[in-house]
Formats: sequence, C-alpha cells, structure tokens
Amino acid sequence: MESFHPPHRVLMGPGPSDVSERVLKALSQQTIGHLDPSFVTLMDQIKSLLQYAFQTKNELTIPVSAPGSAGMETCFMNVVHPGDRVLVCINGVFGMRMQEVAKRAGADVVALEFDWGSPVDPARVEATLASDPAINCIAFVHAETSTGVRSDAKALCKIAREHKCLSIVDAVTSLAGIELRVDEWGIDAIYSGTQKCLSCIPGLAPVSFSERAVARIKERTTPSDSWFLDLNLVMGYWGEGNKRTYHHTAPVNSLYALHEALLIVQEEGLENAWARHQTHHHALAKGLAMLGIELIVDEAHRLPELNTVAIPEGIDDATVRSALLQRFDLEIGAGLGKFAGNAWRIGLMGNGCTRQNVLHCLSALGTVLQEQGYHCDPDSALNAAERAYDTPTSAY
Amino acid sequence: MESFHPPHRVLMGPGPSDVSERVLKALSQQTIGHLDPSFVTLMDQIKSLLQYAFQTKNELTIPVSAPGSAGMETCFMNVVHPGDRVLVCINGVFGMRMQEVAKRAGADVVALEFDWGSPVDPARVEATLASDPAINCIAFVHAETSTGVRSDAKALCKIAREHKCLSIVDAVTSLAGIELRVDEWGIDAIYSGTQKCLSCIPGLAPVSFSERAVARIKERTTPSDSWFLDLNLVMGYWGEGNKRTYHHTAPVNSLYALHEALLIVQEEGLENAWARHQTHHHALAKGLAMLGIELIVDEAHRLPELNTVAIPEGIDDATVRSALLQRFDLEIGAGLGKFAGNAWRIGLMGNGCTRQNVLHCLSALGTVLQEQGYHCDPDSALNAAERAYDTPTSAY
Repeated sequence: MESFHPPHRVLMGPGPSDVSERVLKALSQQTIGHLDPSFVTLMDQIKSLLQYAFQTKNELTIPVSAPGSAGMETCFMNVVHPGDRVLVCINGVFGMRMQEVAKRAGADVVALEFDWGSPVDPARVEATLASDPAINCIAFVHAETSTGVRSDAKALCKIAREHKCLSIVDAVTSLAGIELRVDEWGIDAIYSGTQKCLSCIPGLAPVSFSERAVARIKERTTPSDSWFLDLNLVMGYWGEGNKRTYHHTAPVNSLYALHEALLIVQEEGLENAWARHQTHHHALAKGLAMLGIELIVDEAHRLPELNTVAIPEGIDDATVRSALLQRFDLEIGAGLGKFAGNAWRIGLMGNGCTRQNVLHCLSALGTVLQEQGYHCDPDSALNAAERAYDTPTSAY
Repeated sequence: MESFHPPHRVLMGPGPSDVSERVLKALSQQTIGHLDPSFVTLMDQIKSLLQYAFQTKNELTIPVSAPGSAGMETCFMNVVHPGDRVLVCINGVFGMRMQEVAKRAGADVVALEFDWGSPVDPARVEATLASDPAINCIAFVHAETSTGVRSDAKALCKIAREHKCLSIVDAVTSLAGIELRVDEWGIDAIYSGTQKCLSCIPGLAPVSFSERAVARIKERTTPSDSWFLDLNLVMGYWGEGNKRTYHHTAPVNSLYALHEALLIVQEEGLENAWARHQTHHHALAKGLAMLGIELIVDEAHRLPELNTVAIPEGIDDATVRSALLQRFDLEIGAGLGKFAGNAWRIGLMGNGCTRQNVLHCLSALGTVLQEQGYHCDPDSALNAAERAYDTPTSAY
C-alpha cells in the first residue's frame, strides 16, 4: 500500500467546499499540546472569531470537536430535557434528522412537515404553538442542504420567543453564506459545520448558546446521555482564561485551520461574504437558465450557496456527474432524499464561490449535457453569466 | 487578529505526541468530497491498515470521526444495552470515565477499584464474575494514561470469555506502543486515539468490534442514545465497496493523515514498534534513575510509552514544567487525578519515541532540577542512558 494522493477536484457539491491554500497551510503546522499556554490563546481567539461569524456576544460559542451532525446532537442532548415537547419543522433531510436526534434525546416531538423545496411557513408554526402551549422548544433548519431552501429564521425565532419557546437552529449551510444574526434574531441554540461556507476542512461543528439556553442546560437534573457532548463538562474545557478543566483532547490541527478560515471571513467582512454569494449565485442562475436548466426553489427562498436544479428529462444523473468528475475534475452534488435521481445540487460556498467556478461549471455541464443528446448552447450560457456580473444585484 | 503560528515544541507528555512531517504533509493535501470514488478507496485502505494495527480481521474496524473519548462512548452506547450489568475496572482516571460513560449508556455498573499505579488484578475480576453471574460485560483500560500502568488484557479477556461476558477495552495509549492482539486475545470492543503512539493528529478514534459484539449491536431493540455514534448507521457509511449510505461528512483531511500514520506503522512493523518503545523506555528509565527520579509503577507493569515519575520532595511541579516548556521547548505531562501535583508523566510515543528525545529530556530535566536546588548530575544521567542503548532489552 502506498501514500494516498487525492485527485485534483473543483468542489461544487453540498460540501466540503474548496479549502484555500492558506487554510491548508495553517492546518499542517506542527501539532502542540492541547494544554499548551499558546493553545489556550488560540482557543480564546477562535471563540471570539466565531462570535463574529455568528453575530453574537454569547459566551458559550465554541467549536464542537466533531462534525456538524455532532453539533446538532450537542444542541438537542443539552438544551432539550427528557420529556420536553419540541416542535420540529421538517422540509428536507436535515429536518428529518433533527426529529430523529430530538427523539433520541428524549423529546416528545411534534413534527410539522412542509413541502420539499419550500420553506418552513411561520404562520403554521405560529398556529401550532398557539394550539399546543406545552411546546417549549422549536427546531428548524435555516438553510436546508438537501433542497437549497432558506427559511425565515428571524421570523421563526420571533414567534418562538412570543410563545416562550427556546429555538434550535441548523445553520450548517447558512453560516457565512447568507445573512445570519444570532443575537438580533434571538436564536437560542445554533450549530453549523466547517466544511460549507467557512471553507475549512470537515470535522468541526461551531455552536453557540444564548443565556436562556445556557440556563436551561445548567438546570438539568439528569446529565445528558453523552459524556463527550455534555456542555456542562465541555464548558469547563473552553472556559475563561487559564481555568480550564481537562475534558477530551481537542483536535489541535483542525483548530489551526478553523482559526485561519474564520480570520479570512473576518477580513472579508460578513456582509461582503453574503453579497458575494448572492452575486455569483445570480450569474450561475442566469447561465443555467440559458442552458434550459430549471432551479427548483422559488427565487424568494433560494440559497445562493446551494443551487438545486432539476435534471433534464431523459438525462441520466450518474452518467453526467461521473463525466463531470472524470473529465472536468468537477464535483456537483446528487439529489438527496425525495430529490435523489431527479435533482443536482450545485454549491457555491465560501472559497469556492467565485466567477471562475461559475464559468467552469456552466461550461463543463453544458458540454456534458450536449454530448448526452441534450439540446443547449454552452457559449450562450457563459455569455449570460458574464453579463450578469455587469448587473449589480441587491446586497444580500 | 493575526494568523496563528504555534511555537516549536518537543511533545513528551501524555499526548498528543510529535507528528511527523510526512503525516503533516499528507494532512494538508487538497480536500476532496467524502463521496468521491477515490475517497472510498482511502476509506477501504484505512480499514485494512487499522486491522493490521489492531491485529484483527474484524470487519467493523473503523475510525470514529471524533476524539478518543467519543470512541469510548461509541463502544458503550452500542455494545451495552440499557440495563446490562457491566463490570468496570478502575485503576485511574480513564477507568473512572468508563464508569461514567457506562452509566449514561444505561448500564447497571459494578465498579471494581484497584490502587492507582497498580494494574487491574485478574483474580479479583474472576472472583467478581464468579459471584455475580448477571454481569454480561467487562470493561477495563489496557494502558492507563493517568498512571502509566499496563494491565493484562490477554488474561482479562480470557476470563471474560470464560464467563460469557463481552469485553470493552480502552487502548487509547496502547495501540502501536505495546503488544496488543485483538483477535488472539479475544477482545470484543476496543477503542483508541490517534494522537498517542500512532503520532497522528488528535481528533479520531479507531475502534474495532468482534462478530460477537456486532451481533449484540445489531440485536438492539432501542436505538443508541446517540445518532452520531450509532454504529448501526455508521456501519452503512463505512460499508463494503460502493454500497455506502450517507451518514455524516467524514473528516477528510484528518483521514489523509491517519492513512499516512498507519502506513508508517505498517512499514516499521508492529513488533518493531513495540520493541522500539521498550528500548527507549529502558534508556530513559536508566537516566532517570541516575537523576534520582523514581518511576512510580513496578517494572512489570510499566508502560514504556508513558513514564510516571514522582516529583522530588521540595520541587514545585508547575515551576519545573513551565521552565522546561519556556526554555527547552519541552512539554512533559502533569499528574492527573490522584497524581496531580506529585507526579509527572513523560511520554515516549510513536514518532516521539527516539534516542534524541530521551537525551533531550534527561538533559533539560536535570538542568532545571539542579537550578531548583535539587542535587543531581545531568551528565551522568545522559551517560547512563547512552550505555543502556548498548544493552539489548527483551523484544517487547
């Protein structure tokens, strides 16, 4: 067996997104001890950079030492107490996962389903909360990675507060890609992943908790089922200054990478990053339209960072994705759940959200589709995208 | 805020150990998608390399996408069913942690305590199993990282089988450092970490399960509390060939590093690696003896990779460790639990288990101790270590 060398790829799927050289270089610095004084400095800086990315002053704002789904579990296993009645909004795979995780955390789940490709409807959430006052927590996905839909997190969290509910928000694909303001919107518990719009390596889950959520966590009478994800213990490890209590060994090098990725976000500025995602999405959408490829989600609820498109009639999903990968080094995502086999997911996330990637994708996809007998004109699509860049879009 | 650059360190604590340039270089290769065909190849190779490291043919041999303590939790949350009576052997911090994790997994725990610095006594385990036939699982730490003690995993697993119990073994600090033979010894569930004798970056937990353990996992009637660590789902993600079911996003770059670290172990050969740990431990022990520093653990039960030594009378723990770090870039470990403040833990793990490190440690420690008014002769200690290298030690 020999050393593994990954092929060169352009990652335009649902994540991971392309990681920059800068982040990879930070990642590969020498490992130091997780109790080293300079590592403690790194931890403090990461907390502060994450607060900026989440737009929060929440003290408990840290990266969980595991992937995004462990971030989801961290929220449910700590904030939800056994027997709590939790409203879970489901409009895709990750809402379904929330339901499963909430149940395992001992929640009495009320599931509210919405059409795939549509957002969570605040009016239905409000009506449910009004009719079922035992519900004390609502959970929803801000940016549904399986469908490419943005739900109105601001409106949903406002409704939650009005009904004295805590809110748990999945921001795996939204963080640093679309507008997200934890404090202003009154979000209580939020989790994300590092491999989407932060363009860091996969494996960490940034989370943040409001004072209300922290109070709820601290008043538990039974410990959370998981020792590893128990925030009452993890808080001590990520605590203030030098008063740190050993819990587990932090993923040192991954945290180097996260620090650098967050620094890049701060350097660009969040509003600029959100606007950039909108700009390139707009150009991609124009190009796709010229190819005759239809975006599944209504314009009002589309995620700029994840474009779900219908696979044209008669075109084979796997054949096209395989040709894109083998001949153009281009990864786009397959459909997931109800969209498996009939949709593709084209990501424009973080470091991969560039003009070059938009044009590469349109050119490669157009070429492969033509070869498969689909009638389209790749050059016109490229022109349409280029022209879109001359038209200013609304900021974000 | 600026990019983070870690200071140069020589890591001779309880882990992480020094990561080689080769592994860091593998780590920093371009991120690819976790569903990329070439990534599937990488996953298959990692399984096979881990089988070698664990000396097992177990099909379910994978790295959990989180640190060692999540590996511990994976074992308990899946193998132990709620209400199972589990004997947990405690001779240090990590046995205590096993007890806590087992309880949270719903186990009816029978705790058997042993002196810190001593191994688990097979005779007491046997007597307990004989007197309490309801026990169906035993759990113990092979290499107690808090004390530097090796317990007799072979004997303990034999006893477990004789009493129709499954065994759960903590091999965080033993894997690739001391003899460990999963199949030959009949271990049912085992977990480790990557940042000890594998000298990979921290953040992954290799685990392996016997057919008996897998059968037990599959016959669960209630799902495990954790969705993220549920092996009935994770198995599908790490399954054979292309039949993979999406579960979470694997930590792609960390797996590049693990692949390379495991390749290095295979290239050296496990028996050679075990013998190397013994050789350098032997030299370090000779040098420490010449400094008048006492190893706490009896020679018969010492871990070569983790040397727990008594802090000499009148010497301040933190002052010495701080001087070693600041002036010699040398990290050694503080005592943990009952040993906090009265012991140091000197690691000789994996890539950090070298003649150069042994000599650097003796020289630096001797110098700092002398400055603190402790009477010793660092040069004699170096000579004693050098001479030890001329005396062949038993293989491992």
